[in-house]
Amino acid sequence: MRCDRLWRNARLATMAGPGLGLVNAGLVASRDGAIVHAGVEEDAPSFEPDETIDCEGRWITPGLIDCHTHLVHGGNRAREFEMRLAGASYEEIARAGGGIVSTMEATRAASEDELVDSALPRLDAMIAEGVTTVEIKSGYGLDIDTEIRMLRAARRLGDVRAIRVATTFLGAHALPPEHAGDADGYIALVAGEMIPEIARLGLADAVDAFCEGIGFTTEQTARVFDAATRVGLRVKLHAEQLSNQHGAALAAQYGALSADHLEHLDDDGVAAMARAGTVATLLPGAFYFMRETRLPPVEALRAAGVKIALATDCNPGTSPLTSPLLAMNMGATMFRLTVEECLLGMTRHAAAALGLSHEIGTLEAGKRCDLAIWDIEHPAELVYRMGFNPLHARIWSGR
Amino acid sequence: MRCDRLWRNARLATMAGPGLGLVNAGLVASRDGAIVHAGVEEDAPSFEPDETIDCEGRWITPGLIDCHTHLVHGGNRAREFEMRLAGASYEEIARAGGGIVSTMEATRAASEDELVDSALPRLDAMIAEGVTTVEIKSGYGLDIDTEIRMLRAARRLGDVRAIRVATTFLGAHALPPEHAGDADGYIALVAGEMIPEIARLGLADAVDAFCEGIGFTTEQTARVFDAATRVGLRVKLHAEQLSNQHGAALAAQYGALSADHLEHLDDDGVAAMARAGTVATLLPGAFYFMRETRLPPVEALRAAGVKIALATDCNPGTSPLTSPLLAMNMGATMFRLTVEECLLGMTRHAAAALGLSHEIGTLEAGKRCDLAIWDIEHPAELVYRMGFNPLHARIWSGR
Ligand SMILES: [Zn+2]
Ligand SMILES: [Zn+2]
Repeated sequence: MRCDRLWRNARLATMAGPGLGLVNAGLVASRDGAIVHAGVEEDAPSFEPDETIDCEGRWITPGLIDCHTHLVHGGNRAREFEMRLAGASYEEIARAGGGIVSTMEATRAASEDELVDSALPRLDAMIAEGVTTVEIKSGYGLDIDTEIRMLRAARRLGDVRAIRVATTFLGAHALPPEHAGDADGYIALVAGEMIPEIARLGLADAVDAFCEGIGFTTEQTARVFDAATRVGLRVKLHAEQLSNQHGAALAAQYGALSADHLEHLDDDGVAAMARAGTVATLLPGAFYFMRETRLPPVEALRAAGVKIALATDCNPGTSPLTSPLLAMNMGATMFRLTVEECLLGMTRHAAAALGLSHEIGTLEAGKRCDLAIWDIEHPAELVYRMGFNPLHARIWSGR
Repeated sequence: MRCDRLWRNARLATMAGPGLGLVNAGLVASRDGAIVHAGVEEDAPSFEPDETIDCEGRWITPGLIDCHTHLVHGGNRAREFEMRLAGASYEEIARAGGGIVSTMEATRAASEDELVDSALPRLDAMIAEGVTTVEIKSGYGLDIDTEIRMLRAARRLGDVRAIRVATTFLGAHALPPEHAGDADGYIALVAGEMIPEIARLGLADAVDAFCEGIGFTTEQTARVFDAATRVGLRVKLHAEQLSNQHGAALAAQYGALSADHLEHLDDDGVAAMARAGTVATLLPGAFYFMRETRLPPVEALRAAGVKIALATDCNPGTSPLTSPLLAMNMGATMFRLTVEECLLGMTRHAAAALGLSHEIGTLEAGKRCDLAIWDIEHPAELVYRMGFNPLHARIWSGR
């Protein structure tokens, strides 16, 4: 059988089950950017490849998928971090121009080119760890022009680097100062004007909101979801991070791709997610950085059969994390996820959280040939180490 | 004034005080591997350099110093990590060959070349983040031949890479199985035979021990320290990690360079360290990885004026951490160290913990020209980010 490239003499973690789908003496063959075969070398059809790569026993996993990031934004919040450690109060930080408003202002002040340029080092850090698909949210513009500019910048990142970018419109991230005291008015703008316009421009693959005591109510979130549904966009939700607003259950009602964070999720929420097939995306970087103590209900999610994804939540305020490998270590160390759950959470289940299970996330014939090739002796090493990158090579769409 | 190299148009954090020693428009000049000038460009003497490097406004800090590692060892414990997450008990892990004994066995089975080869990827990860001096302990051999081989491998790492290696003999790390039930007998061997022989061979720069309920008593530690003192070696101690054994106070009595971990340190221990000038080396990677909850007494150390250093504690069992930048983030996030304390802890105070304050740790005339040059807008970014490496260039001994 003809193929473009053949990776042989490899050990595979296909993520196609059972478990990690371990294959000891395996190969992967690609044609036109897709996998045409992945499995045991001995049982494979005979291939006539244009190029053969001897992996010398290295491990191949699917390329990593970071399914929840705020990668595109202006500025950073390092000074705010420094002030807080030095004992400054939230009020003092706000007066010094800190908080999410500072990121909003820096983002509004940035051109599309500047947003792309400032995001590239963060994206390159992820690419260096084997990421082949990244989700990027808007949500620091909070006006239509800047939200559009953020999404355009996110799409551009997918042109200037060999990576797939899934974009999510997060207009309902926070209340912009010009709408202070009028959350309903702002939500009307998001639902009535922003979502239709962004859908018309084809700039978003999904719609998200921040449902929280300090964010938007479930009623407001429902209006955003209704608008998304009208234009045919799938939804996801920042839910139950700081308190239980029953946002995950609402998201499940709308057939959400994922509900994310979930530290305060209750049994009813777990059951609703299980019924709807909504993925639980856990974000240990924010839990760690904000020194949270309440753990997400991992046992209950497991028992209910809810798929668990893991992501960096890369953002300047609560998770300045650009390492998917470290996100896996944090998921294991702090949330007690197993090695298998962490690895599935950054591949197969992350694909599900993006509605892309048919295209990416496992090493199976028909999927895109997105591979990460690792200098390790066992997949557990990808989760066990902290701040160490054993990536040998990254392949995106067969190249 | 003649010099070899001149780095100009830089921002400096000299670590020479006050605070981080910030210089806005600075230069560093080197001759014969040493700094001949570091400071404001305008006030500097006029130099005739062989080579001038325009830093384009980048920040220069002293090269980072990782003052507590177990970088040289055989094997890894990723499978043990995986088993523990999957619910295995300590007994099951021990029966499956886990625990420190597994590292001892893998280390005893490894040749000097193999120890060097397996340590290099870890060392290279540190070098990639700007480390120019690393301390490396023995302590997984627990017999004289393997302890010597570990220290030889550590010294060799300083030959095959452009980095300074400080070696520490840690024979009193754990009780080897062949001495089970006879800790005093093993300590007699460490103090009576190993230390004199290792001193004769010039293989160690300091002597360390593990003083703990599950380790050695203060009496046994004192015998180790007496032997070190007889051969003219400075001491340091793993102290007060899991319980208060009053090890730090003992170490201070012996004029120890540092006492390390210190989560259970009491006020008397703090006072003893302050009097002796013993550095407090905090190891947040182990705290994080072992999910400890008791914080080291940072306020008391601060109030007493004890110097605080930070290190990775890179080791396979309790801190598989190879990122000094992440160690700083963990020190800030979990231990509430300030940005200034973290940066001093990886430079100036880490040098003090190695007894090398006269040679490294600050940008000052007379010190070695070990530099880290960073693509950042503010030094706080080095502590704030997680899993991101903004190193632009690393200079070791002026090159
Ligand atoms: Zn988020
Ligand atoms: Zn140690």
